[in-house]
Amino acid sequence: MDVKVGLIGVGRMGSAIARRLLSAGCDLLLYNRTQQKAAALMQAGARAATSIDGVCAGRDLVITMVADDAALQEVVLGSGGVRDNLSARAVHVAMGTHGVAAIRAVAAAHRAAEQNFAAAPVLGRPEVVDAGQAGIIAGGPPAALGICRPTLAVIGRRVFEAGDDAESAAALKLTNNFVLAGCIEVLSEAFALVRKYGVAPAVCLDMLTEGLFAAPAYRTYGRIIAEQNYDQVGFTARLALKDMSLVLAAADAAFVPLPSANTVRDRLLTAIARGDGDRDWSVIAREQARASGLD
Amino acid sequence: MDVKVGLIGVGRMGSAIARRLLSAGCDLLLYNRTQQKAAALMQAGARAATSIDGVCAGRDLVITMVADDAALQEVVLGSGGVRDNLSARAVHVAMGTHGVAAIRAVAAAHRAAEQNFAAAPVLGRPEVVDAGQAGIIAGGPPAALGICRPTLAVIGRRVFEAGDDAESAAALKLTNNFVLAGCIEVLSEAFALVRKYGVAPAVCLDMLTEGLFAAPAYRTYGRIIAEQNYDQVGFTARLALKDMSLVLAAADAAFVPLPSANTVRDRLLTAIARGDGDRDWSVIAREQARASGLD
Amino acid sequence: MDVKVGLIGVGRMGSAIARRLLSAGCDLLLYNRTQQKAAALMQAGARAATSIDGVCAGRDLVITMVADDAALQEVVLGSGGVRDNLSARAVHVAMGTHGVAAIRAVAAAHRAAEQNFAAAPVLGRPEVVDAGQAGIIAGGPPAALGICRPTLAVIGRRVFEAGDDAESAAALKLTNNFVLAGCIEVLSEAFALVRKYGVAPAVCLDMLTEGLFAAPAYRTYGRIIAEQNYDQVGFTARLALKDMSLVLAAADAAFVPLPSANTVRDRLLTAIARGDGDRDWSVIAREQARASGLD
Amino acid sequence: MDVKVGLIGVGRMGSAIARRLLSAGCDLLLYNRTQQKAAALMQAGARAATSIDGVCAGRDLVITMVADDAALQEVVLGSGGVRDNLSARAVHVAMGTHGVAAIRAVAAAHRAAEQNFAAAPVLGRPEVVDAGQAGIIAGGPPAALGICRPTLAVIGRRVFEAGDDAESAAALKLTNNFVLAGCIEVLSEAFALVRKYGVAPAVCLDMLTEGLFAAPAYRTYGRIIAEQNYDQVGFTARLALKDMSLVLAAADAAFVPLPSANTVRDRLLTAIARGDGDRDWSVIAREQARASGLD
Repeated sequence: MDVKVGLIGVGRMGSAIARRLLSAGCDLLLYNRTQQKAAALMQAGARAATSIDGVCAGRDLVITMVADDAALQEVVLGSGGVRDNLSARAVHVAMGTHGVAAIRAVAAAHRAAEQNFAAAPVLGRPEVVDAGQAGIIAGGPPAALGICRPTLAVIGRRVFEAGDDAESAAALKLTNNFVLAGCIEVLSEAFALVRKYGVAPAVCLDMLTEGLFAAPAYRTYGRIIAEQNYDQVGFTARLALKDMSLVLAAADAAFVPLPSANTVRDRLLTAIARGDGDRDWSVIAREQARASGLD
Repeated sequence: MDVKVGLIGVGRMGSAIARRLLSAGCDLLLYNRTQQKAAALMQAGARAATSIDGVCAGRDLVITMVADDAALQEVVLGSGGVRDNLSARAVHVAMGTHGVAAIRAVAAAHRAAEQNFAAAPVLGRPEVVDAGQAGIIAGGPPAALGICRPTLAVIGRRVFEAGDDAESAAALKLTNNFVLAGCIEVLSEAFALVRKYGVAPAVCLDMLTEGLFAAPAYRTYGRIIAEQNYDQVGFTARLALKDMSLVLAAADAAFVPLPSANTVRDRLLTAIARGDGDRDWSVIAREQARASGLD
Repeated sequence: MDVKVGLIGVGRMGSAIARRLLSAGCDLLLYNRTQQKAAALMQAGARAATSIDGVCAGRDLVITMVADDAALQEVVLGSGGVRDNLSARAVHVAMGTHGVAAIRAVAAAHRAAEQNFAAAPVLGRPEVVDAGQAGIIAGGPPAALGICRPTLAVIGRRVFEAGDDAESAAALKLTNNFVLAGCIEVLSEAFALVRKYGVAPAVCLDMLTEGLFAAPAYRTYGRIIAEQNYDQVGFTARLALKDMSLVLAAADAAFVPLPSANTVRDRLLTAIARGDGDRDWSVIAREQARASGLD
Repeated sequence: MDVKVGLIGVGRMGSAIARRLLSAGCDLLLYNRTQQKAAALMQAGARAATSIDGVCAGRDLVITMVADDAALQEVVLGSGGVRDNLSARAVHVAMGTHGVAAIRAVAAAHRAAEQNFAAAPVLGRPEVVDAGQAGIIAGGPPAALGICRPTLAVIGRRVFEAGDDAESAAALKLTNNFVLAGCIEVLSEAFALVRKYGVAPAVCLDMLTEGLFAAPAYRTYGRIIAEQNYDQVGFTARLALKDMSLVLAAADAAFVPLPSANTVRDRLLTAIARGDGDRDWSVIAREQARASGLD
């Protein structure tokens, strides 16, 4: 690949993306607020810039992979940020999970500056990216997507094209997370019900996952809930609450009621109020159990 | 198989069960209120009794596969019913989808009469039974289950053992249906949301079903909802409402709140109130779309 | 008053009705399964019948005030019940709080027997009836209501006429109870919220009840919740659950989703599951508090 | 009164507050972005400043009555705003309806600047203020409240003291609005139910409002809903959605689930999605009716 890529943000997910790009022989320039995170990647061939200005200079693609909407807006719209430094033929690709309002604001700023912008959030955890198995959702104007496509194909296994607006990709990513939340909620209710009737959770899990629900989401979270094992944390309740807030904000902005998202949000609030905020978000099953009188 | 089976109720599901038993060489006696339904089965080797008395006489197993709780109670507890005719060494196996209260009442009656009883509802449609692919959920005292097991193994592909009470099997079967309802509800909400953001439903479906939700439930109902194709009816909204009422009644009796079941029930009520009661139950997605201002 | 009244059921509410009738000089004949309850009323001028047959004989009005739907159906439709004994010119008035399905069944039976029937549930507790302050909701065909009206006017302070079907009165009474349940639920949520912000519940109560919500429901239940005083029981959580089930059954039969009733029902289920079933139904506020991490 | 007051924002509510202060002989200085709004008040004795600097100079109290949280933050925290100009012995009193996060941010800024701050939102509409009948909710440190109290007593009929944090007043005001929203929701459901049973809405309204619910909220909104008269707008669905979002944000920040607020929010979203956003917020009753098949 002879695409020149700048990458802002090399936390766990950013690093996984960087490794994919480096192993494809990509010319990669990194920028991170805290420099030491980049060390291992530099041994693998990346170079580091010391400013956003530097990481944008001469790049075809500038990828941002930052923690949240506030960080995105600061990195892009802040003085000396990506907007101030992106060249007209380059593309900024936001690969974090962001809210539609933040993506909309960033898209508007780039459009006003006659710059290319796309959103391309990742489905799956860093390990999945490393294994080359991640899905990527891409949204943005055809011109921007056209430039990104080969690079996204290197990073992930498959690219799902959401639409011509960057925010369509944000909405689709949040929808994926919402469907997962809904699955966990329904499993929480289901396991509480069968426990009250003396059915072993493992039998219920077996029935579901070898039949209509033979899918990773049900296998993974079904086992956690059946075993009430919320201390091995994949994603905390606190982060999940932030995610559900983004889902509900996206729904609000489009005037879509999402009763199932309300249910999950309420359970997460209760879980956090009771001190389980740093446990795995499937701890909402414990709230359902408590609400059913199962200690 | 040298088990002598009596079968009460040869509608679509009862007939599929009968075919499985006949093809295993089972000695099968049928009883149905309307006699003509049994004709094809008799050509395949079954014999017909003209009364419940007759269909119970000399049988090891008496299977009931009737439409609903009222029918079950009439057939079992009515004068001249199964309770009045079941021999002490035989077992009555209720294979329909019933509420826990009805199963509890029937179980109590058989216990009082010192008879064996088990519940063994079927997962899947008649076609699945015919293909030998159905799961069966069995619940009841060990003695009763011990007698049923070989026969159930002939009917289905796998038997899930729910517990020592017949009602545990009823609860587990209802839970399976509830989890499916919850899946349809969340998909309904998800598709409405992405449509508002200009994402093609087919892309959303593809993303979900090749990732975390690669399961029959999501593929089947995801496609129906993506295509808004509610007129090819697998299970009507009216029947689904009856099912959700059984789920909620089971939850009520055990003091388990099920917010997701409430959401589905409310959507079904609205769908029926608006004239969609005879469409496929996934028509609840149309209500979500309407509530989102999508025609 | 020269109306001849038979009264079936002299529990607390039945006795209050009897006292009102006796003090208006009514010719009153009582019937109760357990005879001793009628003793005080007999000293006040009532006479007692020893059978339903006897309490119906020669009466213009036969009032039933029994505990629940099962008792109503037994007393009316059972062998030797009101249906078998009501004369053509008399009216049966069901004054208990009943579900619409039970009232519909009783109405159909009376109509088939060419008998008059009305439903006239009472708003308020027995003390309110004794004070002559109760409202009464009347529903039934004009002919039946015409006969009842003077007697109902003696029992209560005001009669609200719901409609030409007896079940309209049942629906309106259940609606009153539902609106009260909704008020308690919202207060539960409101008090939890303000407590989290350090507002004294008494201040919140004061603000609400001297402003937009200056009504008995808010004053009474607001104080109970502000003081977390659920042991002085007006109406138990268990009875409230039965009531909400009647409300939801009425809504189901008419295909009306009632999300607020679902919320209350779920809280009651949790309250009962946790051992608060015999506390006042406003104990649902404790569940809201728990779900908010308060105590 | 010899308190010197500066007032920022003379829209409808700000003007009503100004009139109360002027009629009590208060020395009042006004500031509004658009100057002409102040004309009538100046004829009544107020003077106008041309900057925030000017309206703060020499004042004991600076009242802000601005449209929303963004306006508050701009007016207070913006360059040349209230924070930059408030004297150490004066108090800033925010009298608008604001979210707890905005009030918390403003309080923190004033605290950092060693300035006094209180929140004192108003219960009731401008007409109610003019009639001297408004309630006021006050929250803030004792020193700040001590300075405000006499002035607030002039503006309103009664002052409810929420707590030592300004945000306690914001939370209590939002709670009042939430309880009203809950009342409207339950009435919406109740009227849909009784209509399905043929009960005239006016009879239902009469029953409720002369009994347990004899309060302004039920009388006002009960009549609107009974008459389905959503075009005489007191408060639009759009503004109500903003309000519910503030309520839910306050609840989120304190980890309190509010299922009834979710229900109202969802109905408002649907009402807006269907084109009723500029109708009175009680138009949520129309959505309940539609969801019940009563168009």
